This record gives sequence, structure tokens and C-alpha cells, in this order.
Amino acid sequence: MYGAGDVRVENVPDPTIQAPTDAIVRVVLACVCGSDLHPYHGMPATGTGVPMGHEFLGVVEETGREVTTVRKGDFVISPFAFQDNTCQFCREGVQTSCVHGGWYGAGGVGGGQAEAIRVPQADGTLVTTGSALEDTDQTLLPSLLTLSDVYLTGYHAAHMGKVTARTTVTVIGDGAVGLSAVLAAKQLGAERIILMGRHASRTDLGREFGATDVVAERGEEGIAKVLELTRGEGTHVVLEAVGLMPAYEMAYGVVRPGGVISRVGVPQYEAAPIGFGSLFGKNATLTGGPAPVRAYIEQALPDVLAGRINPGRVFDRTVNLDDVAVGYKAMDAREALKVLVTP
Amino acid sequence: MYGAGDVRVENVPDPTIQAPTDAIVRVVLACVCGSDLHPYHGMPATGTGVPMGHEFLGVVEETGREVTTVRKGDFVISPFAFQDNTCQFCREGVQTSCVHGGWYGAGGVGGGQAEAIRVPQADGTLVTTGSALEDTDQTLLPSLLTLSDVYLTGYHAAHMGKVTARTTVTVIGDGAVGLSAVLAAKQLGAERIILMGRHASRTDLGREFGATDVVAERGEEGIAKVLELTRGEGTHVVLEAVGLMPAYEMAYGVVRPGGVISRVGVPQYEAAPIGFGSLFGKNATLTGGPAPVRAYIEQALPDVLAGRINPGRVFDRTVNLDDVAVGYKAMDAREALKVLVTP
Repeated sequence: MYGAGDVRVENVPDPTIQAPTDAIVRVVLACVCGSDLHPYHGMPATGTGVPMGHEFLGVVEETGREVTTVRKGDFVISPFAFQDNTCQFCREGVQTSCVHGGWYGAGGVGGGQAEAIRVPQADGTLVTTGSALEDTDQTLLPSLLTLSDVYLTGYHAAHMGKVTARTTVTVIGDGAVGLSAVLAAKQLGAERIILMGRHASRTDLGREFGATDVVAERGEEGIAKVLELTRGEGTHVVLEAVGLMPAYEMAYGVVRPGGVISRVGVPQYEAAPIGFGSLFGKNATLTGGPAPVRAYIEQALPDVLAGRINPGRVFDRTVNLDDVAVGYKAMDAREALKVLVTP
Repeated sequence: MYGAGDVRVENVPDPTIQAPTDAIVRVVLACVCGSDLHPYHGMPATGTGVPMGHEFLGVVEETGREVTTVRKGDFVISPFAFQDNTCQFCREGVQTSCVHGGWYGAGGVGGGQAEAIRVPQADGTLVTTGSALEDTDQTLLPSLLTLSDVYLTGYHAAHMGKVTARTTVTVIGDGAVGLSAVLAAKQLGAERIILMGRHASRTDLGREFGATDVVAERGEEGIAKVLELTRGEGTHVVLEAVGLMPAYEMAYGVVRPGGVISRVGVPQYEAAPIGFGSLFGKNATLTGGPAPVRAYIEQALPDVLAGRINPGRVFDRTVNLDDVAVGYKAMDAREALKVLVTP
């Protein structure tokens, strides 16, 4: 990406092993993330461009000499961030704060919207699916790809919000992360899930994922509607999957006293209300952050492989890598919910 | 209080039962709260004045006809807020959000810095100590009084921060609530407690309560010092017992990735940083609020009665009710840490 709206496909040198902990992965399936749309909207024009994409499935092509857990030919899932998975923060389940970790598309590491990619800290990052690519039911690939980011980001929201069968839940946002949060809340046992979103085709999928109520209203009207649905009390948990201030304002408006707001939409703001009138007065908890998806992949994998959950339903368009700009445009125009990219 | 700095002692009509759920309590011991200093600093002058004080021990004088759990002569502790202790929020442990609850000194309810007070929702509010006043070791009264607010407010911070033996803790603030938070963190098993405060006499008591390190520096220097003490990692839990923006800024500066900031200092701000650079990026959780002390009194009472904890050591001055203005002045000037008021 060279700047807002300026996505180009270019031939670049093949990635090579640079550190003994690296692996080179041939990308099998990638996608466009809602968060990729932030630079698509606002990135200043640059002369050099930045590599894009951080969600991918692939096959290991080559490994550095210190890599022991994956080898050439393995079919792997990569979390959207890399990590050693052994440092003090990784051990505490905060892999996105790994002291040796980092982000794709930055610091000399390429992006996943590519034919191949260098994966740093391969032992701590890549997870094998247990089968070779050719032995895998190809219809499962989209759902496996969601373990790279989107489904497990929704799961992180629900996990941090401590969703259980005893908690009522509001999900703010009917994008792919919001719908994933609905599915994750359902998996964690929630019986009442209110989905706030305005796009009927998306909220319909939300209902299939487990939403019991849909609120199309926004702002004060949206808050009033959720309160009306909950005897004026609000819900125990609010999963905020947007990242914009109006979504956060709705979150503290509908959270129940003593409840939890769990954010996974990357905040497009720094300061926001947290004083007596918003969070403090009702003992509301605010949690969330970049999902340490590495912590959750192994646990979710059997459910995906067995078809018990099908989070890949959030994908509704596929483009070739050469046409990735079309994918950005479709997501930006909300013509597509989430776009698969095939190299 | 008639306005900033304007504390008067006046004769007012004796309180009377107004609802069948009321009790009239003769105040035995009260005190001045750090939060009383906020109006003492900034309250606009009024013609009528507001009753002050929300922490008290007393003896029940009279009860409304629906009151069943306390009766005339009982020696009782009152939480700093009243509640029915049966509503949906009370049952979930958020008594400060009780649908029939409220605050002393507001809405026609008097304050605790008085000879007697009407207690609404007496059944849900008052807790008997198990002994008559005359059968109680009088040296325990200050510690019993801390169960009305200050110790259990510190306890709420530690409880919401999920302090255990495995968590490192920073306590911000060497006021009575901060020192109470140190004691509570110690009770919950914390082995490393860093106390941020500049007043040696106070931090000395903090060390006796369980602080293992004291950091006198503030702002960026204070943050650097705590990071230095924790291998650059910060602490798992930060208990923020001040309520001013610089304290909150230190809190997110020293919290460890994946850690918790638990606030009990009433925020004197509404908007504050919570975006990628402060909370979100490191998956920090923000929690806390007005302590539902009613939820914790019974559990703490045996420890106080047996002398296993002595949270009443935060009191270092006693004034008669007639001299309560002297008490405010001494606390405001930081000549006193916390002031007892005897009617």
C-alpha cells in the first residue's frame, strides 16, 4: 500500500531466511482484514509502500537451523502477529506483547497478501493443522484461516469479557470480527446475545451464529433499545468490535453495573470517557486489546476440523492476489464482508 | 458544608423514621473521608449547606416496622452507601448500584458526621458486630470503623485487581485508601507490593502494612523507577487510590502487559487515555469503582475482631464533632492522615 486507496501488486525478491529462527512459508490462502481498511482510508502517500496482510495459511518451504517444531511441507496457520511463545508475557497468555514478537508488514517482515512470506520466530508462531494440505478438506480452508485472526479475535473479546451461560452479551458491530464475537460468545455458552448492526445480510449471519436479538439503531437510540430489551439493566458483557468512538460510547451506555466492556476493535481514538459518569460509577470493567490468538489456536482447531463451528462463513468474496485492490474496494464499499485472497 | 472550606456544626431536628425500612442510629464514631476534601476544595457556596460524612459506627435507637435484622440496642457498622442488598445488582455484588440504594448526605438523608442519622434500607445496610457496644474492646473501634469505607475500599481495589500470591502489585497513593489497599493486597497474598508515595510517615505505615518497596518519585520518574524495580516489565496489578489524572497516567505507565489497573480513587476527570498507546496495546484491563463494601464486611469482621488486621492505624487524629472543621483543615493540610470524629 502506497497511501490511502493506493494498493498495488508488485514483484519483489523472494523472502529468504535471515535468522536461524525464521521459516519461509508459501502462502496458500490469505485475506483482507477490517484493520487493513484503516490505512486504506488514511495512510499518507509514500514513495516506498508497505507490505500488507497478516492472516494466512501456508506450507513451510524452508526453515532456519534453530527451528524444530515445523518442517518443509507442513501445512500451517500463522497468527496475525509473531512471537516466541516462551517469554514471560507469552507464558502469561499475552503473546501480542512478546518481547521477541512483532507485526507482519513492518520492520523488514513482509505481509501475508503475497505468494510467500518470511515468518520470524517460527517455532513460537506457526501451528500445524495436523494434516498435509493435500489431505485437508479444502472446504475447511476459510474457517482454518479465521484462526489466524478474525474468529480468535472475536474469541479473545468473549474470553476477556468472561462470557458464560450466566452472562448476557451485547456485541457492537456486524463486521467480520463482531460476527465472530457472536459465534465465540455462543461457544462460551451465552444464551442471550444482542447484536448491534445495521446490515441485514450481516446480522442474518449473526443470528445463525447465535445472536438472539438484533438492534439496528445506533447512538442514544441504540442504547435505549438495548436497555429496553434488558429491563433497563444493560448486559453483563459488551463486546466492542468496531474501534470508533461512537461504538465505545454505546458500549458504556449498555453495560450493566459491575459488567465488562471487552474491546477488540483497534481504537481509532486515544482519550475517551472513563470517569464517574461512564465506567467508574457503575463499577464497569474495560478490557481487551490485540488478540493473542496464538494462545487459542490449538483449542479451536478440533472444532473447525470437525465442522462443529464454521467461522469461515464471514468470507463472502474471493479475489486473486493480482486483484487484491478489488478486494479492498469491495470491503471498503461494504459490498463484501470479508475477502479471501488466493495467491 | 456550605461551600469550599466552609464547614459548620449546627443543631438540626433529630432524624425520624420516614419509611418502614428505616432505622435511626445514634452515632458512636465517625470520620472524615479523603473524598470529603473534594467539596472542601471546590464546592460552590450555598445558602443551605449539605450534611457531611458517610462512615460511622453506631447503636440502633429505633427501627421502622419492616426492619427485621437489627433492633434497638444493636451495635452496627454502616457501609458508606445504603442498599437493600437483595436487588439484582446487590446479588451480583455491586451494592453501590442498588436500585433502592443511595448516598448519605443527599436526597434528604443526613450525614454520618452527626450525633444521629436516619439509615434507609436498614436491613440491607447495617451489619451488627455480634456484640453490644459496651462488650466491645474499645480499642477496636477505629478498625471496625474502617469497614464502613476506607479499608474495604482498599480491599475492593485489590479484589477487583485479582491480587493473589502470584501477582506483583503497585499501589499509587499513600493516603488512607492507598495504605488500606496495601494491607488488603497483603491479605490476599501479594508478596511484592510497591507503594508510590512521598510522605515518609505514611509510607512507613505502608511498609508495616506490607509494602516491600516505596517509590517517592512521581510522573515519568516514578514510572521509570517502578519499571526498574520490575525488570522493565511493570506489575500485574496497579491499585490507583488517588483519583487524579497524574495518578492514572502513572497507572498505565507501570501496568504490565495483560495486567489490571483497579481504581478506587474517585476520578476527578471524565476523559482519559485508553487507546492503543495506553491500555489497548498491552491488553491492560481497567476496573474498579465505588466499593460495594457491604459485600465484604462479614468476611473482614472476624479478622478485625481478632486483631489479625489493624486497618484503624490509618487514623492519626481525633476531634470532637464540634471541632470537625479542625479535622477537615488538618487533613487538607496533610497534617493528619485520617481524622476520627467523636459525637
